[in-house]
Amino acid sequence: MAERITPRAEDFAQWYSDIIQHAKLADQSPVRGCMVLRPNGYALWEVVQRELDKKFKETGHRNAYFPMLIPESFLKKEKDHVEGFAPQLAVVTHGGGKELEEPLVIRPTSETIINFMYSKWIQSYRDLPVLINQWANVVRWEMRTKPFLRTLEFLWQEGHTCHETDVEARKETLKMLDVYLSFLRDTFAIPVIPGEKTPSEKFAGALQTYCVEAMMQDKKALQAATSHYFGTKFAEAFDIKFQDRTGKQQFVNQTSWGISTRVIGALIMTHSDDQGLVLPPKAAPLPVVIVPIIMKNKDNSQVLEVSRKVHAEISKKVTCYLDDREEQSAGYKFNEYEIQGVPVRVEIGLRDLVNGIGTVARRDGVKVQVKIEEIASVVEKTLSEFQIALYDKASKRLKENTFIEDDYKKFQEKLEANGGFYQMHWCGKDACEAKVKEETKATIRCVPFNQIKESGKCISCHGPSGGRVIFARSY
Amino acid sequence: MAERITPRAEDFAQWYSDIIQHAKLADQSPVRGCMVLRPNGYALWEVVQRELDKKFKETGHRNAYFPMLIPESFLKKEKDHVEGFAPQLAVVTHGGGKELEEPLVIRPTSETIINFMYSKWIQSYRDLPVLINQWANVVRWEMRTKPFLRTLEFLWQEGHTCHETDVEARKETLKMLDVYLSFLRDTFAIPVIPGEKTPSEKFAGALQTYCVEAMMQDKKALQAATSHYFGTKFAEAFDIKFQDRTGKQQFVNQTSWGISTRVIGALIMTHSDDQGLVLPPKAAPLPVVIVPIIMKNKDNSQVLEVSRKVHAEISKKVTCYLDDREEQSAGYKFNEYEIQGVPVRVEIGLRDLVNGIGTVARRDGVKVQVKIEEIASVVEKTLSEFQIALYDKASKRLKENTFIEDDYKKFQEKLEANGGFYQMHWCGKDACEAKVKEETKATIRCVPFNQIKESGKCISCHGPSGGRVIFARSY
Repeated sequence: MAERITPRAEDFAQWYSDIIQHAKLADQSPVRGCMVLRPNGYALWEVVQRELDKKFKETGHRNAYFPMLIPESFLKKEKDHVEGFAPQLAVVTHGGGKELEEPLVIRPTSETIINFMYSKWIQSYRDLPVLINQWANVVRWEMRTKPFLRTLEFLWQEGHTCHETDVEARKETLKMLDVYLSFLRDTFAIPVIPGEKTPSEKFAGALQTYCVEAMMQDKKALQAATSHYFGTKFAEAFDIKFQDRTGKQQFVNQTSWGISTRVIGALIMTHSDDQGLVLPPKAAPLPVVIVPIIMKNKDNSQVLEVSRKVHAEISKKVTCYLDDREEQSAGYKFNEYEIQGVPVRVEIGLRDLVNGIGTVARRDGVKVQVKIEEIASVVEKTLSEFQIALYDKASKRLKENTFIEDDYKKFQEKLEANGGFYQMHWCGKDACEAKVKEETKATIRCVPFNQIKESGKCISCHGPSGGRVIFARSY
Repeated sequence: MAERITPRAEDFAQWYSDIIQHAKLADQSPVRGCMVLRPNGYALWEVVQRELDKKFKETGHRNAYFPMLIPESFLKKEKDHVEGFAPQLAVVTHGGGKELEEPLVIRPTSETIINFMYSKWIQSYRDLPVLINQWANVVRWEMRTKPFLRTLEFLWQEGHTCHETDVEARKETLKMLDVYLSFLRDTFAIPVIPGEKTPSEKFAGALQTYCVEAMMQDKKALQAATSHYFGTKFAEAFDIKFQDRTGKQQFVNQTSWGISTRVIGALIMTHSDDQGLVLPPKAAPLPVVIVPIIMKNKDNSQVLEVSRKVHAEISKKVTCYLDDREEQSAGYKFNEYEIQGVPVRVEIGLRDLVNGIGTVARRDGVKVQVKIEEIASVVEKTLSEFQIALYDKASKRLKENTFIEDDYKKFQEKLEANGGFYQMHWCGKDACEAKVKEETKATIRCVPFNQIKESGKCISCHGPSGGRVIFARSY
């Protein structure tokens, strides 16, 4: 392990990797491209699971579980889907010591196996809507990997729904995108830009892919979640028909939507600093820690007694850990919790205690001295203020680094020097998108919902454009 | 789907399969030996996850996640382990369109990959204990499969811990067995016999395997969970050493413990009846349903209004669903909830409402008429009574079908006619165990903790024995 955390300004990629190591979020595994989610990292995934699972259930969805191994032939049933995923498959050819008659692939996503089952379960409009979600692992054989952001195996949830009408399915697609947006905003304190992917960036097999795009501290974009509208494409491939209210046979209209462990990478790169991880209180498995300043060869009984009382009071409202280990110094503990991103630290020491005072320190350095009996309420207030402060800081960054640009040369220079999001005109042609990508490594992140609609000239070919889209380099 | 549920007395195996289909717990998938956990079935797994995860955390464990794909060579590092698992492996030979240099196996269990990581993480006694659990899917290439009980892929949790001393590790092994026992007793209402496996039945690589054995309604045994003590066997194979308190290098002492989706099979076969699934209230995702008796061409407003009030009141204490769908008859709904095992049904109809009365019906047929304003409290009482009644019924079955037997012939006859658990003397030799198995299909389920210790003669070879062990046919 590197002895210190590389500052962001020195090497952002190394900083990211150092944060993950020092905060013990993940570790490299002996399997190429697969990481180990250590307890500190998995706890963040548990926050994602807890919050989103609640929202999914509130919106009428239920969880299920489908086989991870899929007959290779299933992938081939939808033409676009197989084209997109075939190069990334892990293939099981042997089982129980024998070669299999038909190889099985490990799910890169579960549309095919789930739709096979849906075709058995759905007969009538009375069986609709089907609103099912799955929490699972998937494998995509990526060549270049990076912890959380891109790994061969990753954890995610995938919702798969069927509806009577296209209107209803489209509504579902956008509803679930909004669920992601509000989770990212309210829990992870990450502002995002919702929008639609261009044809070249959409999910293999989807008619439309919607996404939420976040901006990292290096001003690069990160796609945090996606929601897809399939129309009847998969229904036709898997023959999922129902008798509608008029007695006619129809194909169901479908959606799928997902978020993965990659969102933890977004969390790290949005808030953390050169001292270590920074967690918004609502994303923190441990929002508050109390460190009594224990002095060697002194009577610490009063400090410990007060610490325990404060701990009991804070614990009524929020998870709080009293670190009264004697073998570690207070300074060591401060450092440890700073690296691990604990949002609020309470310090109780003898020197201040004689004046009836303790310290409440926010992870970003804001510190206040307060009366012991007020600590609990100050902690509560500090947590909600810090949550907002982090969101505001990230919003400011996003705003200040989103530019309206019409000059290709200036765009290239600015992008190279500063990164950022560029609202630029695009004619709608794949070729122009590809050319910009080749020349600048920037792609169209999305056609934002709040698009600036105005006529203009494509940044690449100068052909006519009806509105601006967002270009950026991305993870 | 079979039109009716086959009665248990007619064909127990068919009954089991019918219950799963009719209650929509699981479905066959197109992949041999893999099942689909439908929402009703997955909801039961969520109960297992919620309850056990709470207990694991209360006992100091944290969750993590390790790669599913394991280099084939890892499996071979522990001799007994590879012998046990090699025949059951699914092997990935191709990834990203290319043949892999070293094949990867899908985890059949994660000792090897986890211990590889532990050897990197553990240096000193200060790093101990390591108390980690993983919720995951695993694959074992079984030839004969049965929904929940034995499937190629299944969901489980696996705890893997490291300790300074053997005493501490042994304590952990038994502590976690007790966590399973109390979960099974208090949530699933399944009484179990805790004990130790014989050498021939223990986990591949363990020094000792402890288990909890339940009795199904057909008087066959089902192993519901296991906890293993490894000593330093894996630590030696993976070189997991730490500097102890005296500065000496030592191998860590380890345990692992797990419970899987198979426990849902145990839940089904312990309580359900010929009408459908029966769920103990604490295991039920939906403990209470309210069915207003809606009459066609009548004014149902009062019935619906009262139903809503009762729903609101019950919902303060427990999850409750008000089924006010108009397109289905009350009779249809009664039948549906009976099949799905909802523990308590409340009926509110106009006829009784004029007398201020409604009905509270327990899933086992016990019905009472109560004043509307007392429904909520009666429901609460009924739920806790039903939980106990189911446990008592299962305990009675276990007790009445556990026999002390010394005559091999009588044992064979009784086993054939009735099934059951047989407390019999055993000399300790593998050969005798194997012979009984061959002749009767009964195996030693465990040496129970509350073993009858007395001298006697082995049921098979008549050699000396110091106590009775439990023989039974099992799932």
